[in-house]
Amino acid sequence: MSATDERYQRLLARAREGEVPATSQLISALESRRAGTEAILGDLHRAGGHAEIVGITGSPGSGKSTLVSALARELRGRGETVAIVAVDPSSALSGGAILGDRIRMQDHVLDVGIFVRSMSTRGSLGGVSRATVDAVAVLDAAGWDHVIVETVGVGQAEVEIMRIAHTTVVVSVPGAGDDVQAIKAGLMEIADLHVVNKADRPDANKTAAELLAMLTLAGPPAAGGWAVPVLSTASLDGTGILELADALAAHLAWMTASGERERRELKMAAARIHSIARDLIVERLAGPSAGAAVDQVVRDVAARRLDPHSAARALVDNHPVPEPQLEKIA
Amino acid sequence: MSATDERYQRLLARAREGEVPATSQLISALESRRAGTEAILGDLHRAGGHAEIVGITGSPGSGKSTLVSALARELRGRGETVAIVAVDPSSALSGGAILGDRIRMQDHVLDVGIFVRSMSTRGSLGGVSRATVDAVAVLDAAGWDHVIVETVGVGQAEVEIMRIAHTTVVVSVPGAGDDVQAIKAGLMEIADLHVVNKADRPDANKTAAELLAMLTLAGPPAAGGWAVPVLSTASLDGTGILELADALAAHLAWMTASGERERRELKMAAARIHSIARDLIVERLAGPSAGAAVDQVVRDVAARRLDPHSAARALVDNHPVPEPQLEKIA
Repeated sequence: MSATDERYQRLLARAREGEVPATSQLISALESRRAGTEAILGDLHRAGGHAEIVGITGSPGSGKSTLVSALARELRGRGETVAIVAVDPSSALSGGAILGDRIRMQDHVLDVGIFVRSMSTRGSLGGVSRATVDAVAVLDAAGWDHVIVETVGVGQAEVEIMRIAHTTVVVSVPGAGDDVQAIKAGLMEIADLHVVNKADRPDANKTAAELLAMLTLAGPPAAGGWAVPVLSTASLDGTGILELADALAAHLAWMTASGERERRELKMAAARIHSIARDLIVERLAGPSAGAAVDQVVRDVAARRLDPHSAARALVDNHPVPEPQLEKIA
Repeated sequence: MSATDERYQRLLARAREGEVPATSQLISALESRRAGTEAILGDLHRAGGHAEIVGITGSPGSGKSTLVSALARELRGRGETVAIVAVDPSSALSGGAILGDRIRMQDHVLDVGIFVRSMSTRGSLGGVSRATVDAVAVLDAAGWDHVIVETVGVGQAEVEIMRIAHTTVVVSVPGAGDDVQAIKAGLMEIADLHVVNKADRPDANKTAAELLAMLTLAGPPAAGGWAVPVLSTASLDGTGILELADALAAHLAWMTASGERERRELKMAAARIHSIARDLIVERLAGPSAGAAVDQVVRDVAARRLDPHSAARALVDNHPVPEPQLEKIA
């Protein structure tokens, strides 16, 4: 075991004891992605499986952060621990998001049962970045009861969140055409729960009614299926937060009883494997270890001595690779 | 050789004789992606390399279509043949784009030296789809002098276009903050030529000045490098179209003389190989032929008996695959 591995192992052991600084350091170490992270990611995966992972998405300005903060307080009141991962677009906006993060941390600073962490989306163009997936793995392995992943509603992020979450909550706000946006952006298909936040605004009932109408159009759920609820919240005075926590618990209970949880975890595993396999291929073909053989193949394709499909097949099949590790660790 | 292969070969032979219907049929056949397309794509690649591929990108409403039409007319006047591939977002907008396509076709309907084809971007989320890449390969192999790929300025499309084009033209329009959009969207880095279209509008000089200021900030080109020009056009009365055609020719001449063309073709080949390799991996892991072994691995990962990195490595390395075909076809 290398010195790096040992450091990771020590951090993981301390994170599992509930030490927040060790948890933070482990997330940062994986985010900077130094060599030798793969072994610790394997350990994290095997140690995980406890947390309920909830994805919360909605457009900027929908009040997601305040809602998540209020939800966390409610879950804490029920004796459960809550970790929050806030995914920020890696743009000029992130300064603002980090500030918001600090304010929220202060909100919960005396509570060791709450953890808040911001992640940038660099490198994955608005998607749920690899670093976010790793952070969720750390928090799951460290034994947090709930891991809430909060994404701003841009581009693919909302759809991608479904791939790492057991339950997906879509937040809309009254007026400003945001309801229509949720419907247009394909969010109807991914929502397990709808929340109309800022329910004290004048148009709140109209927004909720429109969402219900869209759900009705899609038809009733199959026998034993899940009927997607539309909840109304006003995070500032706490309206609807209790009901939201109840609905999350109900969805979890339904998933477990119906076999849906198992189906989703299979899908999550498949998506994770595909994503890593794609990264591996890109690394092999473009990384520093790709070497002269790949260079020659690229030159042959550019010179039209070889076609790109044959080249891709040959490289995927024949490139020298590390030893396979397909032994079950039961 | 299968019956499908023979059909493709016949279509390719007729396309190379300049038969437009055969060219269209070949593009459609590849778009619907029936079995056995890989061999013909290999033939297309080996037959290609003649065309100058120009990417033209800009936000909706920047008048790209009219500009491209005027440019095509100018290039035809110089005795060169021009094929246009217009990439449409696969949204409700495509009805409008197809209509525009028909209007443009009528514009050139009596000229056999012009070819116009619309492609949807389905399946690649605003990017340059596989079908577009294949259409460019058909037109290149069929011997067209210029292949112009026109993309609407959404998301990643502008950056992706650079991967299949020798020369990238970014179109801005005066006012409406579009100049700022071009700058913000990372288009400054990909532009070989800037065009300010609708130059008869009041703010045209201001937009051109802002683009020039941004280019100046980036510093002068290296000795023997390319100084990105900012051209002004008004497609309706033909202002600046001649200068645009000249600038494209100058860029091509510079690329050839400086070795940049060779460097770009290497990059294009590498990007193409990577993209096909990623598709191959996804097909293998998720396709109908993936089979019981992959299912078992996914179940093992979901049950945390196996970690996803080891699973991905093992699957990428060990999955049964067709015979490698890495023989040079000189």
